[in-house]
Amino acid sequence: MITKVKISDVRFPLDGHAGSDAIHRDPVYSYAVTQLKDDSGITGTGFAFTLGEGNDLVCKAAEYYARQLTGKDIEDTMANFGELFKKLSNDQQFRWLGPHKGVVHLALASVTNACYDLWAKKRGVPLWKLLIDLSPEQIVNTLDLSYLEDELTYTQALEMLKGQQSQKEERKTILYKGYPGYDTSIGWFNYPDELVRENCKKALAEGFTAMKLKVGSVDPDRDIRRAHIVRDVAGDGIKVMLDANQQWNLPQAIEICTRLKGMNPYWIEEPTHPDDLNAHAKLAQAITPVKLALGEHVPNKIIFKNYLQSGSSSFMQVDAVRVGGVSEFITISLLCKKFGVPVVPHVGDMGQLHQHLVLFNHIAMGHQALFLEHIPHLQKHFVHPAQIVNGVYKTPQEAGSSCDLVGLKNQFL
Amino acid sequence: MITKVKISDVRFPLDGHAGSDAIHRDPVYSYAVTQLKDDSGITGTGFAFTLGEGNDLVCKAAEYYARQLTGKDIEDTMANFGELFKKLSNDQQFRWLGPHKGVVHLALASVTNACYDLWAKKRGVPLWKLLIDLSPEQIVNTLDLSYLEDELTYTQALEMLKGQQSQKEERKTILYKGYPGYDTSIGWFNYPDELVRENCKKALAEGFTAMKLKVGSVDPDRDIRRAHIVRDVAGDGIKVMLDANQQWNLPQAIEICTRLKGMNPYWIEEPTHPDDLNAHAKLAQAITPVKLALGEHVPNKIIFKNYLQSGSSSFMQVDAVRVGGVSEFITISLLCKKFGVPVVPHVGDMGQLHQHLVLFNHIAMGHQALFLEHIPHLQKHFVHPAQIVNGVYKTPQEAGSSCDLVGLKNQFL
Repeated sequence: MITKVKISDVRFPLDGHAGSDAIHRDPVYSYAVTQLKDDSGITGTGFAFTLGEGNDLVCKAAEYYARQLTGKDIEDTMANFGELFKKLSNDQQFRWLGPHKGVVHLALASVTNACYDLWAKKRGVPLWKLLIDLSPEQIVNTLDLSYLEDELTYTQALEMLKGQQSQKEERKTILYKGYPGYDTSIGWFNYPDELVRENCKKALAEGFTAMKLKVGSVDPDRDIRRAHIVRDVAGDGIKVMLDANQQWNLPQAIEICTRLKGMNPYWIEEPTHPDDLNAHAKLAQAITPVKLALGEHVPNKIIFKNYLQSGSSSFMQVDAVRVGGVSEFITISLLCKKFGVPVVPHVGDMGQLHQHLVLFNHIAMGHQALFLEHIPHLQKHFVHPAQIVNGVYKTPQEAGSSCDLVGLKNQFL
Repeated sequence: MITKVKISDVRFPLDGHAGSDAIHRDPVYSYAVTQLKDDSGITGTGFAFTLGEGNDLVCKAAEYYARQLTGKDIEDTMANFGELFKKLSNDQQFRWLGPHKGVVHLALASVTNACYDLWAKKRGVPLWKLLIDLSPEQIVNTLDLSYLEDELTYTQALEMLKGQQSQKEERKTILYKGYPGYDTSIGWFNYPDELVRENCKKALAEGFTAMKLKVGSVDPDRDIRRAHIVRDVAGDGIKVMLDANQQWNLPQAIEICTRLKGMNPYWIEEPTHPDDLNAHAKLAQAITPVKLALGEHVPNKIIFKNYLQSGSSSFMQVDAVRVGGVSEFITISLLCKKFGVPVVPHVGDMGQLHQHLVLFNHIAMGHQALFLEHIPHLQKHFVHPAQIVNGVYKTPQEAGSSCDLVGLKNQFL
């Protein structure tokens, strides 16, 4: 039974332009952390990610949700988590502040993720193992499929998972090989050209076969120049992704993406405003065969459904610390599977939680094991930091979801 | 110069099921209020609307924005408000919590609206008069048109307003006739049938020619029965609107809206989730000629642009206390004008602020003077409550935007 709830506002300033992009010049990576203590003495930890200012608002909203979990048994709760998720996310007064987006939805992510962490720790297994060992019925019962009925019913979700059962064993080989990573940190927006070149070489030496550069400069020539630097250093065999972080409007995006075609980007990410469904559709058509990626700022399953229906985005970057946590991440992954679109999470969690989720997506849902973003900057703050060796995430072995933070370890003592 | 800033969390519990709808069973109408005191002694008041829980979060976010206005001159600020709006709404850390939606955007509405109120009070005129007397350039300079470049550039906005100049004088007759209202309070969700019937008769006696019923019952037969009650009492000459408050998923909406065709609704409002652009497009097509209305939960100009492009909604219910305040309300109204779609605001402000804005939309922008929602429940809390006589809003004459609240009058004494 959950007996104590603790919410913490933790912020980590970054050094030397790390984390900078075209829109976010000086972020402070921050977590609104929920900890749920069980009467067995085990603590589940989950969080949502923000860029600093307003992290306290997410904490306050998380407190409102978390309070409602006191007295609940975690196994009972997770046996029908979909219902609880629906109830919390549609709280009749709080809902006005979204619905299903912004501060309240980030808060729900924090609380949801703490539930999953507690669940896995109580069972004494890593989250990926808990998830892949669940039956299709048990999985679907953790999901809230409301407003998806036109694309994904309960029965359809169940059938999708059942259809993958026979191939699960074979796909478990990924657990030994490790899940491929890609390096996001070679070219933060405010890094000088020389540092980008250097980082690119370092990433290659570390075994990465995919890397990402921030674009979206006031002067597009800077973007073109830097993109070609990366391509030149990396060579043609390496996947190079470009990330504009919403900097362009539609006419600009069409023009600049067309100019970027020449360096053969693997995708162009967040070219314009994340709410602009139609602009992405027009852009995708205008710059084909260049592919788009988005999702980092898409708050819920309903908007992902719309993007999937419109076919504009070739990679979905769902983030379980932006949407309503693990539960909604799985819901969206099912939707993506139905539409044949790969899930390549944005990692506000620095990959800690997502290393579990992509293993589940691959093994139990049949998603392609493409690669998972890797951001190293907060490694030292995690009790069990993700291990990336030769460009590959090593499969985590400790119980839970790898989200415990060093500074909060003794929170309840 | 703005010298003092005060944020207040005010909540008004409602009596006897007033305000109830299919999703919000027991709302507490609440305002996150921003007051800006000028060194001339004048106080500008603006607010965002919530349903109670979490109103404090909006207040906290409003404080963050409002602090940045201290020391500014209101005339200087409003001469180029579009730039300030863009800057505040893209605050590089705070932006993560939206962008442009949820708690942070509600907070921006509160602060923006306080600026407009202060501006009008300093000039000693009602807000509608201030707005219609501005030149097209002055209006467009209060707007942030970013991410709309594919549909509405600065020059196009300017031309649209210039093109209406010659008809402004003639349209001012509305100031004497008053702007038509419609009655939203005849059929709150939890009102019994008999009360709906009674309220309907009362609304007719008060001179209303349009009224709204809440639908979205678990049992659709209840919706059908109550809709026909209203139609029977009102007769064929009265406009009857139905409001489902997002209760249905797409398959349900298609089925129930088709059944509701028989009572000839003037519109069906918020049939499903406000983020579901594609569902609205499919529904509109499936139930034609029945028309849809939405906007109450649409947070920004970009999503409105998408709805306008998809052509699914025949009435746009922008709410200046949900989107980023008066500035974004005008931006969206311009977009709507371009697409030939009437603006019929949702009135989280109980019509206090919107009575000014619809006059501006009609006189200076050439929008049809259709009708403005009327909700009477908070009348006594306003210093200058909207006057509805014979179903018509009387034109407000006091300086400002009519948003001063009785309890906050002496805030700065």
